[in-house]
Amino acid sequence: MDAGVTLIVLPGPPREMQPMFENFVLPRLKEKAGGIFVKRRILRVSGMGESAVDELIAPIYKAFTEVQTSILFNKSEIEIHLTANAKTDKEADATLEELAAKIADKLGTAVFALKGETMEEIIGKMLAENHKTLSVAESCTGGLIGMRITDVPGSSRYFVEGSVAYSNDAKKQTLFVTDEIINKFGAVSAETAEAMAAGMRSRSGSNYAISVTGIAGPDGGTEEKPVGTVFIGFADEAGAKSIKLMLPGDRYLIRWRSSQAALDYLRRQILKAYE
Amino acid sequence: MDAGVTLIVLPGPPREMQPMFENFVLPRLKEKAGGIFVKRRILRVSGMGESAVDELIAPIYKAFTEVQTSILFNKSEIEIHLTANAKTDKEADATLEELAAKIADKLGTAVFALKGETMEEIIGKMLAENHKTLSVAESCTGGLIGMRITDVPGSSRYFVEGSVAYSNDAKKQTLFVTDEIINKFGAVSAETAEAMAAGMRSRSGSNYAISVTGIAGPDGGTEEKPVGTVFIGFADEAGAKSIKLMLPGDRYLIRWRSSQAALDYLRRQILKAYE
Repeated sequence: MDAGVTLIVLPGPPREMQPMFENFVLPRLKEKAGGIFVKRRILRVSGMGESAVDELIAPIYKAFTEVQTSILFNKSEIEIHLTANAKTDKEADATLEELAAKIADKLGTAVFALKGETMEEIIGKMLAENHKTLSVAESCTGGLIGMRITDVPGSSRYFVEGSVAYSNDAKKQTLFVTDEIINKFGAVSAETAEAMAAGMRSRSGSNYAISVTGIAGPDGGTEEKPVGTVFIGFADEAGAKSIKLMLPGDRYLIRWRSSQAALDYLRRQILKAYE
Repeated sequence: MDAGVTLIVLPGPPREMQPMFENFVLPRLKEKAGGIFVKRRILRVSGMGESAVDELIAPIYKAFTEVQTSILFNKSEIEIHLTANAKTDKEADATLEELAAKIADKLGTAVFALKGETMEEIIGKMLAENHKTLSVAESCTGGLIGMRITDVPGSSRYFVEGSVAYSNDAKKQTLFVTDEIINKFGAVSAETAEAMAAGMRSRSGSNYAISVTGIAGPDGGTEEKPVGTVFIGFADEAGAKSIKLMLPGDRYLIRWRSSQAALDYLRRQILKAYE
Protein backbone atom coordinates (compact mmCIF):
# COMPACT_ATOMS: atom_id res chain seq x y z
CA MET A 1 0.00 0.00 0.00
CA ASP A 2 2.94 2.31 0.61
CA ALA A 3 3.92 1.84 -3.00
CA GLY A 4 0.49 3.13 -3.99
CA VAL A 5 -0.69 -0.27 -5.11
CA THR A 6 -3.55 -2.26 -3.61
CA LEU A 7 -3.55 -5.94 -4.33
CA ILE A 8 -6.76 -7.80 -3.55
CA VAL A 9 -6.74 -11.57 -3.64
CA LEU A 10 -10.12 -13.34 -3.77
CA PRO A 11 -11.14 -16.99 -3.71
CA GLY A 12 -12.30 -18.67 -6.96
CA PRO A 13 -15.76 -20.04 -6.13
CA PRO A 14 -18.35 -17.42 -7.21
CA ARG A 15 -20.45 -18.08 -4.13
CA GLU A 16 -17.55 -17.08 -1.88
CA MET A 17 -16.09 -14.41 -4.09
CA GLN A 18 -19.24 -12.43 -4.88
CA PRO A 19 -20.29 -11.43 -1.33
CA MET A 20 -16.68 -10.61 -0.44
CA PHE A 21 -16.41 -8.45 -3.51
CA GLU A 22 -19.67 -6.63 -2.86
CA ASN A 23 -19.22 -6.14 0.88
CA PHE A 24 -15.51 -5.49 1.18
CA VAL A 25 -13.82 -4.83 -2.13
CA LEU A 26 -16.39 -2.53 -3.71
CA PRO A 27 -16.53 -0.06 -0.79
CA ARG A 28 -12.71 0.18 -0.79
CA LEU A 29 -12.58 0.71 -4.52
CA LYS A 30 -15.23 3.41 -4.24
CA GLU A 31 -13.15 5.20 -1.66
CA LYS A 32 -10.01 4.96 -3.81
CA ALA A 33 -11.82 6.02 -7.00
CA GLY A 34 -12.17 9.48 -5.49
CA GLY A 35 -15.58 10.40 -6.76
CA ILE A 36 -15.71 8.67 -10.12
CA PHE A 37 -18.73 6.41 -10.42
CA VAL A 38 -18.83 3.55 -12.88
CA LYS A 39 -22.17 1.90 -13.56
CA ARG A 40 -23.15 -0.85 -15.90
CA ARG A 41 -26.34 -1.87 -17.65
CA ILE A 42 -27.00 -4.95 -19.76
CA LEU A 43 -29.68 -5.01 -22.43
CA ARG A 44 -30.64 -8.30 -24.04
CA VAL A 45 -31.85 -8.72 -27.59
CA SER A 46 -33.37 -11.74 -29.31
CA GLY A 47 -33.94 -12.62 -32.92
CA MET A 48 -31.23 -10.36 -34.35
CA GLY A 49 -27.56 -10.81 -35.26
CA GLU A 50 -24.60 -8.95 -33.76
CA SER A 51 -23.85 -6.86 -36.81
CA ALA A 52 -27.49 -5.97 -37.48
CA VAL A 53 -27.77 -4.70 -33.90
CA ASP A 54 -24.52 -2.75 -34.17
CA GLU A 55 -25.49 -1.18 -37.46
CA LEU A 56 -28.74 0.12 -35.99
CA ILE A 57 -27.44 1.38 -32.67
CA ALA A 58 -23.89 2.58 -33.47
CA PRO A 59 -25.11 6.09 -34.41
CA ILE A 60 -26.86 6.25 -31.03
CA TYR A 61 -24.13 5.01 -28.69
CA LYS A 62 -21.35 6.88 -30.48
CA ALA A 63 -22.96 10.13 -29.32
CA PHE A 64 -22.51 9.01 -25.70
CA THR A 65 -18.78 9.46 -25.32
CA GLU A 66 -18.89 8.89 -21.56
CA VAL A 67 -20.35 5.40 -22.05
CA GLN A 68 -18.41 2.39 -23.24
CA THR A 69 -20.66 0.14 -25.32
CA SER A 70 -19.89 -3.45 -26.24
CA ILE A 71 -22.02 -5.96 -28.10
CA LEU A 72 -21.63 -9.63 -27.23
CA PHE A 73 -23.16 -12.79 -28.60
CA ASN A 74 -24.20 -15.33 -25.96
CA LYS A 75 -25.51 -18.71 -27.26
CA SER A 76 -28.87 -17.45 -28.45
CA GLU A 77 -29.05 -13.77 -27.67
CA ILE A 78 -27.21 -10.50 -28.08
CA GLU A 79 -26.06 -8.62 -24.99
CA ILE A 80 -25.44 -4.89 -25.13
CA HIS A 81 -23.15 -3.87 -22.26
CA LEU A 82 -23.18 -0.20 -21.36
CA THR A 83 -20.60 1.14 -18.90
CA ALA A 84 -20.93 4.75 -17.84
CA ASN A 85 -18.44 6.97 -15.99
CA ALA A 86 -19.80 9.94 -14.12
CA LYS A 87 -19.14 12.18 -11.13
CA THR A 88 -22.18 10.95 -9.24
CA ASP A 89 -24.11 7.73 -9.00
CA LYS A 90 -27.23 9.57 -10.11
CA GLU A 91 -25.57 11.08 -13.15
CA ALA A 92 -24.28 7.66 -14.27
CA ASP A 93 -27.75 6.17 -13.84
CA ALA A 94 -29.38 9.00 -15.77
CA THR A 95 -26.95 8.63 -18.67
CA LEU A 96 -27.51 4.87 -18.82
CA GLU A 97 -31.26 5.32 -18.61
CA GLU A 98 -31.24 7.76 -21.50
CA LEU A 99 -29.00 5.62 -23.72
CA ALA A 100 -30.86 2.38 -22.87
CA ALA A 101 -34.19 4.00 -23.73
CA LYS A 102 -32.88 5.25 -27.08
CA ILE A 103 -31.51 1.82 -27.96
CA ALA A 104 -34.73 0.09 -26.89
CA ASP A 105 -36.73 2.51 -28.96
CA LYS A 106 -34.59 1.81 -32.04
CA LEU A 107 -34.61 -1.98 -31.71
CA GLY A 108 -38.26 -2.30 -30.67
CA THR A 109 -39.59 -5.63 -29.38
CA ALA A 110 -36.29 -7.36 -30.16
CA VAL A 111 -35.03 -5.91 -26.83
CA PHE A 112 -36.45 -8.16 -24.15
CA ALA A 113 -34.49 -7.05 -21.09
CA LEU A 114 -33.45 -3.53 -20.09
CA LYS A 115 -31.74 -4.43 -16.82
CA GLY A 116 -29.93 -7.68 -17.49
CA GLU A 117 -32.88 -9.96 -16.78
CA THR A 118 -32.93 -13.43 -18.34
CA MET A 119 -35.62 -14.42 -20.82
CA GLU A 120 -37.25 -16.67 -18.20
CA GLU A 121 -37.37 -13.82 -15.68
CA ILE A 122 -39.03 -11.54 -18.22
CA ILE A 123 -41.58 -14.22 -19.16
CA GLY A 124 -42.29 -14.77 -15.47
CA LYS A 125 -42.89 -11.05 -14.85
CA MET A 126 -45.19 -10.76 -17.84
CA LEU A 127 -47.24 -13.79 -16.79
CA ALA A 128 -47.44 -12.78 -13.14
CA GLU A 129 -48.42 -9.17 -13.96
CA ASN A 130 -51.17 -10.28 -16.32
CA HIS A 131 -52.37 -13.10 -14.04
CA LYS A 132 -51.84 -15.68 -16.77
CA THR A 133 -50.67 -19.27 -16.47
CA LEU A 134 -48.42 -21.33 -18.70
CA SER A 135 -47.82 -24.96 -19.60
CA VAL A 136 -45.12 -26.40 -21.86
CA ALA A 137 -44.97 -29.41 -24.20
CA GLU A 138 -41.44 -30.36 -25.15
CA SER A 139 -39.96 -32.95 -27.43
CA CYS A 140 -36.37 -32.31 -28.58
CA THR A 141 -35.63 -29.88 -25.72
CA GLY A 142 -36.37 -32.70 -23.28
CA GLY A 143 -37.32 -30.55 -20.27
CA LEU A 144 -34.96 -27.61 -20.81
CA ILE A 145 -37.79 -25.09 -21.21
CA GLY A 146 -39.54 -26.29 -18.04
CA MET A 147 -36.23 -26.16 -16.22
CA ARG A 148 -35.54 -22.59 -17.36
CA ILE A 149 -39.02 -21.38 -16.41
CA THR A 150 -38.82 -22.99 -12.97
CA ASP A 151 -35.31 -21.61 -12.39
CA VAL A 152 -37.11 -18.44 -11.37
CA PRO A 153 -38.15 -18.45 -7.68
CA GLY A 154 -41.91 -18.11 -7.36
CA SER A 155 -42.58 -19.60 -10.80
CA SER A 156 -45.26 -21.84 -9.26
CA ARG A 157 -47.54 -18.78 -9.41
CA TYR A 158 -47.78 -19.03 -13.21
CA PHE A 159 -46.22 -22.32 -14.29
CA VAL A 160 -48.74 -25.16 -14.15
CA GLU A 161 -47.30 -28.17 -15.93
CA GLY A 162 -44.80 -29.43 -18.46
CA SER A 163 -44.72 -32.53 -20.60
CA VAL A 164 -41.66 -34.08 -22.19
CA ALA A 165 -43.40 -36.08 -24.89
CA TYR A 166 -40.35 -37.79 -26.34
CA SER A 167 -42.06 -40.83 -27.87
CA ASN A 168 -44.94 -40.67 -30.33
CA ASP A 169 -47.06 -42.61 -27.84
CA ALA A 170 -46.50 -39.86 -25.27
CA LYS A 171 -47.50 -37.23 -27.83
CA LYS A 172 -50.69 -39.15 -28.49
CA GLN A 173 -51.66 -40.21 -24.99
CA THR A 174 -50.57 -37.22 -22.95
CA LEU A 175 -50.91 -34.42 -25.50
CA PHE A 176 -53.82 -35.77 -27.56
CA VAL A 177 -51.95 -35.48 -30.87
CA THR A 178 -53.85 -37.70 -33.29
CA ASP A 179 -52.45 -40.66 -35.22
CA GLU A 180 -53.60 -38.93 -38.34
CA ILE A 181 -51.47 -35.83 -37.72
CA ILE A 182 -48.36 -37.84 -36.86
CA ASN A 183 -48.78 -40.19 -39.83
CA LYS A 184 -49.60 -37.47 -42.33
CA PHE A 185 -47.18 -34.71 -41.28
CA GLY A 186 -44.62 -36.44 -39.04
CA ALA A 187 -43.68 -35.88 -35.38
CA VAL A 188 -41.53 -32.93 -36.46
CA SER A 189 -44.01 -30.68 -38.23
CA ALA A 190 -46.01 -27.49 -37.80
CA GLU A 191 -49.18 -29.55 -37.37
CA THR A 192 -47.69 -31.67 -34.55
CA ALA A 193 -46.24 -28.59 -32.81
CA GLU A 194 -49.65 -26.92 -32.87
CA ALA A 195 -51.45 -30.06 -31.71
CA MET A 196 -48.92 -30.46 -28.87
CA ALA A 197 -49.50 -26.89 -27.67
CA ALA A 198 -53.27 -27.18 -27.94
CA GLY A 199 -53.24 -30.57 -26.20
CA MET A 200 -51.03 -29.33 -23.39
CA ARG A 201 -53.25 -26.30 -22.89
CA SER A 202 -56.36 -28.43 -22.68
CA ARG A 203 -54.68 -30.97 -20.34
CA SER A 204 -53.42 -28.31 -17.92
CA GLY A 205 -56.13 -25.67 -18.21
CA SER A 206 -53.44 -22.97 -18.53
CA ASN A 207 -54.02 -19.70 -20.39
CA TYR A 208 -51.04 -20.25 -22.68
CA ALA A 209 -49.11 -23.28 -23.85
CA ILE A 210 -45.91 -23.46 -25.87
CA SER A 211 -44.45 -26.50 -27.59
CA VAL A 212 -41.25 -27.56 -29.33
CA THR A 213 -40.64 -30.44 -31.69
CA GLY A 214 -37.50 -30.73 -33.76
CA ILE A 215 -34.36 -32.60 -34.70
CA ALA A 216 -31.47 -31.78 -32.35
CA GLY A 217 -29.06 -34.30 -33.88
CA PRO A 218 -26.51 -35.64 -34.32
CA ASP A 219 -28.72 -38.35 -35.86
CA GLY A 220 -32.31 -38.27 -37.06
CA GLY A 221 -31.96 -35.70 -39.82
CA THR A 222 -33.32 -36.30 -43.32
CA GLU A 223 -32.96 -34.44 -46.59
CA GLU A 224 -36.38 -32.91 -46.14
CA LYS A 225 -35.93 -32.23 -42.41
CA PRO A 226 -32.22 -31.86 -41.62
CA VAL A 227 -30.74 -31.57 -38.10
CA GLY A 228 -31.70 -28.15 -36.76
CA THR A 229 -35.28 -28.22 -38.10
CA VAL A 230 -37.46 -27.04 -35.21
CA PHE A 231 -41.14 -26.13 -34.95
CA ILE A 232 -42.40 -23.94 -32.11
CA GLY A 233 -46.09 -24.03 -31.28
CA PHE A 234 -48.25 -21.64 -29.28
CA ALA A 235 -51.81 -22.04 -28.06
CA ASP A 236 -54.20 -19.66 -26.32
CA GLU A 237 -57.95 -19.29 -26.24
CA ALA A 238 -57.95 -18.16 -29.88
CA GLY A 239 -56.36 -21.40 -31.10
CA ALA A 240 -52.91 -22.66 -32.03
CA LYS A 241 -50.19 -21.46 -34.37
CA SER A 242 -46.55 -22.21 -35.05
CA ILE A 243 -43.28 -21.10 -36.60
CA LYS A 244 -40.53 -23.11 -38.28
CA LEU A 245 -36.86 -22.50 -37.54
CA MET A 246 -33.62 -23.82 -39.02
CA LEU A 247 -31.12 -23.62 -36.17
CA PRO A 248 -27.35 -23.95 -36.55
CA GLY A 249 -25.09 -25.65 -34.02
CA ASP A 250 -24.53 -28.97 -32.31
CA ARG A 251 -27.09 -30.84 -30.16
CA TYR A 252 -26.43 -28.64 -27.13
CA LEU A 253 -26.80 -25.38 -29.04
CA ILE A 254 -29.82 -26.48 -31.07
CA ARG A 255 -31.61 -27.45 -27.86
CA TRP A 256 -30.65 -24.21 -26.13
CA ARG A 257 -31.63 -22.06 -29.09
CA SER A 258 -34.94 -23.94 -29.42
CA SER A 259 -35.75 -23.18 -25.79
CA GLN A 260 -34.89 -19.53 -26.28
CA ALA A 261 -36.93 -19.29 -29.48
CA ALA A 262 -39.94 -20.86 -27.76
CA LEU A 263 -39.77 -18.45 -24.82
CA ASP A 264 -39.29 -15.53 -27.19
CA TYR A 265 -42.26 -16.61 -29.33
CA LEU A 266 -44.36 -16.70 -26.16
CA ARG A 267 -43.09 -13.26 -25.15
CA ARG A 268 -44.04 -11.75 -28.50
CA GLN A 269 -47.51 -13.32 -28.35
CA ILE A 270 -48.10 -11.86 -24.89
CA LEU A 271 -46.82 -8.45 -26.05
CA LYS A 272 -49.25 -8.59 -28.96
CA ALA A 273 -52.15 -9.49 -26.67
CA TYR A 274 -51.45 -6.51 -24.41
CA GLU A 275 -50.55 -3.93 -27.05
CA MET B 1 11.73 -21.49 -32.21
CA ASP B 2 15.43 -20.78 -32.48
CA ALA B 3 15.41 -19.83 -28.82
CA GLY B 4 14.06 -23.29 -28.02
CA VAL B 5 10.67 -22.02 -27.07
CA THR B 6 7.40 -22.85 -28.83
CA LEU B 7 4.55 -20.46 -28.26
CA ILE B 8 1.11 -21.64 -29.35
CA VAL B 9 -1.74 -19.17 -29.43
CA LEU B 10 -5.26 -20.57 -29.61
CA PRO B 11 -8.71 -18.95 -29.91
CA GLY B 12 -11.01 -18.83 -26.88
CA PRO B 13 -14.25 -20.52 -28.01
CA PRO B 14 -14.02 -24.20 -27.01
CA ARG B 15 -15.61 -25.29 -30.27
CA GLU B 16 -12.80 -23.67 -32.23
CA MET B 17 -10.00 -24.39 -29.79
CA GLN B 18 -10.62 -28.09 -29.19
CA PRO B 19 -10.24 -29.43 -32.76
CA MET B 20 -7.20 -27.19 -33.30
CA PHE B 21 -5.65 -28.52 -30.12
CA GLU B 22 -6.33 -32.14 -30.97
CA ASN B 23 -5.34 -32.01 -34.62
CA PHE B 24 -2.42 -29.64 -34.61
CA VAL B 25 -1.12 -28.88 -31.13
CA LEU B 26 -1.17 -32.37 -29.64
CA PRO B 27 0.85 -34.01 -32.45
CA ARG B 28 3.49 -31.28 -32.12
CA LEU B 29 3.66 -31.63 -28.35
CA LYS B 30 3.98 -35.39 -28.70
CA GLU B 31 6.93 -34.93 -31.01
CA LYS B 32 8.59 -32.47 -28.63
CA ALA B 33 7.91 -34.61 -25.54
CA GLY B 34 10.41 -37.12 -26.89
CA GLY B 35 8.79 -40.33 -25.76
CA ILE B 36 7.07 -39.38 -22.51
CA PHE B 37 3.37 -40.19 -22.61
CA VAL B 38 0.92 -38.49 -20.29
CA LYS B 39 -2.55 -39.98 -20.03
CA ARG B 40 -5.51 -39.02 -17.89
CA ARG B 41 -8.53 -40.83 -16.52
CA ILE B 42 -11.47 -39.44 -14.61
CA LEU B 43 -13.50 -41.57 -12.20
CA ARG B 44 -16.78 -40.21 -10.84
CA VAL B 45 -18.22 -41.02 -7.45
CA SER B 46 -21.66 -40.29 -6.02
CA GLY B 47 -23.04 -40.34 -2.51
CA MET B 48 -19.70 -39.82 -0.72
CA GLY B 49 -17.77 -36.79 0.52
CA GLU B 50 -14.31 -35.70 -0.61
CA SER B 51 -12.52 -36.65 2.58
CA ALA B 52 -14.27 -40.01 2.92
CA VAL B 53 -13.16 -40.88 -0.60
CA ASP B 54 -9.61 -39.71 0.05
CA GLU B 55 -9.34 -41.65 3.30
CA LEU B 56 -10.33 -44.87 1.57
CA ILE B 57 -8.21 -44.58 -1.55
CA ALA B 58 -5.08 -42.71 -0.36
CA PRO B 59 -3.31 -45.97 0.59
CA ILE B 60 -3.99 -47.23 -2.93
CA TYR B 61 -2.96 -44.25 -5.03
CA LYS B 62 0.11 -43.45 -2.91
CA ALA B 63 1.63 -46.73 -4.10
CA PHE B 64 1.41 -45.46 -7.70
CA THR B 65 4.20 -42.90 -7.68
CA GLU B 66 4.07 -42.45 -11.46
CA VAL B 67 0.44 -41.32 -11.24
CA GLN B 68 -0.69 -37.94 -9.99
CA THR B 69 -4.05 -38.27 -8.23
CA SER B 70 -6.36 -35.39 -7.40
CA ILE B 71 -9.82 -35.42 -5.87
CA LEU B 72 -12.26 -32.69 -6.85
CA PHE B 73 -15.79 -31.87 -5.78
CA ASN B 74 -18.11 -30.84 -8.61
CA LYS B 75 -21.65 -29.69 -7.60
CA SER B 76 -22.98 -33.13 -6.69
CA GLU B 77 -20.23 -35.62 -7.33
CA ILE B 78 -16.60 -36.37 -6.57
CA GLU B 79 -14.15 -36.59 -9.45
CA ILE B 80 -10.94 -38.57 -9.10
CA HIS B 81 -8.42 -37.37 -11.69
CA LEU B 82 -5.57 -39.75 -12.45
CA THR B 83 -2.65 -38.55 -14.57
CA ALA B 84 -0.01 -41.13 -15.53
CA ASN B 85 3.45 -40.59 -17.02
CA ALA B 86 5.00 -43.49 -18.89
CA LYS B 87 7.41 -44.29 -21.70
CA THR B 88 4.69 -45.69 -23.94
CA ASP B 89 1.04 -45.03 -24.52
CA LYS B 90 0.29 -48.63 -23.65
CA GLU B 91 2.20 -48.52 -20.38
CA ALA B 92 0.34 -45.36 -19.29
CA ASP B 93 -2.99 -46.99 -20.13
CA ALA B 94 -2.09 -50.18 -18.27
CA THR B 95 -1.08 -48.25 -15.14
CA LEU B 96 -4.30 -46.21 -15.19
CA GLU B 97 -6.37 -49.34 -15.78
CA GLU B 98 -4.78 -51.04 -12.79
CA LEU B 99 -5.16 -48.08 -10.44
CA ALA B 100 -8.73 -47.33 -11.59
CA ALA B 101 -9.74 -50.96 -11.01
CA LYS B 102 -8.28 -50.93 -7.49
CA ILE B 103 -10.05 -47.68 -6.60
CA ALA B 104 -13.36 -48.94 -8.06
CA ASP B 105 -13.00 -52.15 -6.10
CA LYS B 106 -12.45 -50.21 -2.87
CA LEU B 107 -15.30 -47.73 -3.35
CA GLY B 108 -17.81 -50.23 -4.74
CA THR B 109 -21.05 -49.00 -6.30
CA ALA B 110 -20.30 -45.40 -5.27
CA VAL B 111 -18.09 -45.23 -8.39
CA PHE B 112 -20.42 -44.71 -11.30
CA ALA B 113 -18.03 -43.81 -14.10
CA LEU B 114 -14.57 -45.26 -14.86
CA LYS B 115 -13.84 -43.24 -17.98
CA GLY B 116 -15.18 -39.78 -17.28
CA GLU B 117 -18.75 -40.50 -18.34
CA THR B 118 -21.55 -38.35 -16.96
CA MET B 119 -24.31 -39.86 -14.80
CA GLU B 120 -26.80 -39.49 -17.65
CA GLU B 121 -24.48 -41.31 -20.06
CA ILE B 122 -24.06 -44.18 -17.59
CA ILE B 123 -27.83 -44.42 -17.03
CA GLY B 124 -28.33 -44.42 -20.80
CA LYS B 125 -25.86 -47.26 -21.29
CA MET B 126 -27.43 -49.35 -18.54
CA LEU B 127 -30.94 -48.87 -19.92
CA ALA B 128 -29.94 -49.52 -23.54
CA GLU B 129 -27.92 -52.64 -22.65
CA ASN B 130 -30.77 -54.10 -20.62
CA HIS B 131 -33.45 -53.06 -23.14
CA LYS B 132 -35.33 -51.11 -20.49
CA THR B 133 -37.26 -47.87 -20.84
CA LEU B 134 -37.60 -44.92 -18.48
CA SER B 135 -40.03 -42.15 -17.69
CA VAL B 136 -39.61 -39.27 -15.25
CA ALA B 137 -42.03 -37.30 -13.04
CA GLU B 138 -40.57 -34.04 -11.79
CA SER B 139 -41.79 -31.35 -9.48
CA CYS B 140 -39.09 -29.10 -7.95
CA THR B 141 -36.49 -30.02 -10.61
CA GLY B 142 -38.85 -28.60 -13.24
CA GLY B 143 -37.54 -30.58 -16.23
CA LEU B 144 -33.85 -30.75 -15.32
CA ILE B 145 -33.82 -34.55 -15.10
CA GLY B 146 -35.54 -34.95 -18.46
CA MET B 147 -33.13 -32.44 -19.93
CA ARG B 148 -30.09 -34.31 -18.58
CA ILE B 149 -31.33 -37.69 -19.82
CA THR B 150 -32.08 -36.32 -23.29
CA ASP B 151 -28.72 -34.54 -23.46
CA VAL B 152 -27.36 -37.93 -24.51
CA PRO B 153 -27.67 -38.54 -28.27
CA GLY B 154 -29.80 -41.60 -28.97
CA SER B 155 -31.73 -41.28 -25.68
CA SER B 156 -35.00 -41.76 -27.58
CA ARG B 157 -34.17 -45.51 -27.53
CA TYR B 158 -34.88 -45.67 -23.78
CA PHE B 159 -36.49 -42.41 -22.69
CA VAL B 160 -40.24 -42.46 -23.22
CA GLU B 161 -41.76 -39.49 -21.44
CA GLY B 162 -41.35 -36.89 -18.74
CA SER B 163 -43.85 -34.91 -16.74
CA VAL B 164 -43.21 -31.65 -14.92
CA ALA B 165 -46.12 -31.79 -12.51
CA TYR B 166 -45.59 -28.44 -10.86
CA SER B 167 -49.14 -27.81 -9.64
CA ASN B 168 -51.14 -30.20 -7.48
CA ASP B 169 -53.73 -30.44 -10.26
CA ALA B 170 -51.03 -31.69 -12.62
CA LYS B 171 -49.94 -34.28 -10.06
CA LYS B 172 -53.52 -35.48 -9.81
CA GLN B 173 -54.60 -35.36 -13.45
CA THR B 174 -51.43 -36.38 -15.22
CA LEU B 175 -49.78 -38.59 -12.59
CA PHE B 176 -52.89 -40.00 -10.88
CA VAL B 177 -51.78 -38.92 -7.39
CA THR B 178 -54.95 -39.02 -5.30
CA ASP B 179 -56.48 -36.13 -3.39
CA GLU B 180 -56.21 -38.27 -0.29
CA ILE B 181 -52.43 -38.66 -0.57
CA ILE B 182 -51.85 -34.94 -1.20
CA ASN B 183 -54.21 -33.86 1.60
CA LYS B 184 -52.94 -36.37 4.14
CA PHE B 185 -49.17 -36.28 3.48
CA GLY B 186 -48.62 -33.12 1.41
CA ALA B 187 -47.20 -32.61 -2.09
CA VAL B 188 -43.69 -32.95 -0.66
CA SER B 189 -43.76 -36.40 0.95
CA ALA B 190 -42.60 -39.97 0.46
CA GLU B 191 -46.16 -41.00 -0.39
CA THR B 192 -46.52 -38.36 -3.11
CA ALA B 193 -43.09 -39.20 -4.57
CA GLU B 194 -44.04 -42.87 -4.78
CA ALA B 195 -47.45 -42.13 -6.26
CA MET B 196 -45.84 -39.82 -8.84
CA ALA B 197 -43.38 -42.53 -9.92
CA ALA B 198 -46.07 -45.22 -10.04
CA GLY B 199 -48.46 -42.91 -11.92
CA MET B 200 -45.78 -41.92 -14.44
CA ARG B 201 -44.88 -45.54 -15.03
CA SER B 202 -48.49 -46.49 -15.65
CA ARG B 203 -49.09 -43.48 -17.93
CA SER B 204 -46.02 -44.13 -20.08
CA GLY B 205 -45.81 -47.91 -19.95
CA SER B 206 -42.06 -47.65 -19.22
CA ASN B 207 -40.14 -50.30 -17.27
CA TYR B 208 -38.86 -47.80 -14.73
CA ALA B 209 -40.03 -44.41 -13.52
CA ILE B 210 -38.30 -41.96 -11.19
CA SER B 211 -39.82 -38.96 -9.48
CA VAL B 212 -38.73 -35.93 -7.48
CA THR B 213 -40.75 -33.69 -5.19
CA GLY B 214 -39.14 -31.23 -2.85
CA ILE B 215 -38.62 -27.67 -1.70
CA ALA B 216 -35.91 -25.91 -3.71
CA GLY B 217 -36.40 -22.54 -2.05
CA PRO B 218 -35.81 -19.75 -1.43
CA ASP B 219 -39.46 -19.73 -0.25
CA GLY B 220 -41.85 -22.54 0.58
CA GLY B 221 -39.96 -24.09 3.50
CA THR B 222 -41.65 -24.87 6.81
CA GLU B 223 -40.32 -25.97 10.18
CA GLU B 224 -41.32 -29.54 9.44
CA LYS B 225 -40.14 -29.45 5.81
CA PRO B 226 -37.39 -26.86 5.42
CA VAL B 227 -35.85 -25.76 2.11
CA GLY B 228 -33.75 -28.67 0.84
CA THR B 229 -36.24 -31.37 1.80
CA VAL B 230 -36.47 -33.67 -1.23
CA PHE B 231 -38.14 -37.03 -1.82
CA ILE B 232 -37.02 -39.29 -4.66
CA GLY B 233 -39.39 -42.00 -5.86
CA PHE B 234 -38.77 -45.09 -7.95
CA ALA B 235 -41.25 -47.47 -9.56
CA ASP B 236 -40.81 -50.73 -11.40
CA GLU B 237 -42.95 -53.82 -11.87
CA ALA B 238 -42.46 -54.71 -8.19
CA GLY B 239 -44.04 -51.46 -6.97
CA ALA B 240 -42.84 -48.07 -5.75
CA LYS B 241 -40.39 -46.91 -3.07
CA SER B 242 -38.68 -43.69 -2.08
CA ILE B 243 -35.87 -42.01 -0.17
CA LYS B 244 -35.78 -38.71 1.68
CA LEU B 245 -32.89 -36.28 1.35
CA MET B 246 -31.94 -33.05 3.08
CA LEU B 247 -29.88 -31.16 0.51
CA PRO B 248 -27.72 -28.11 1.25
CA GLY B 249 -27.30 -25.17 -1.11
CA ASP B 250 -29.27 -22.51 -2.93
CA ARG B 251 -32.12 -23.13 -5.39
CA TYR B 252 -29.74 -23.91 -8.23
CA LEU B 253 -27.70 -26.42 -6.23
CA ILE B 254 -30.71 -28.08 -4.56
CA ARG B 255 -32.27 -28.64 -7.97
CA TRP B 256 -29.02 -29.94 -9.45
CA ARG B 257 -28.33 -32.24 -6.51
CA SER B 258 -31.92 -33.52 -6.60
CA SER B 259 -31.51 -34.46 -10.26
CA GLN B 260 -28.23 -36.22 -9.51
CA ALA B 261 -29.71 -38.07 -6.52
CA ALA B 262 -32.67 -39.25 -8.60
CA LEU B 263 -30.44 -40.55 -11.39
CA ASP B 264 -28.15 -42.20 -8.86
CA TYR B 265 -31.09 -43.84 -7.08
CA LEU B 266 -32.22 -45.23 -10.44
CA ARG B 267 -28.69 -46.48 -11.17
CA ARG B 268 -28.50 -48.32 -7.87
CA GLN B 269 -31.91 -49.93 -8.44
CA ILE B 270 -30.85 -51.15 -11.88
CA LEU B 271 -27.56 -52.45 -10.46
CA LYS B 272 -29.50 -54.36 -7.80
CA ALA B 273 -31.84 -55.85 -10.39
CA TYR B 274 -28.92 -57.15 -12.47
CA GLU B 275 -26.59 -58.26 -9.69
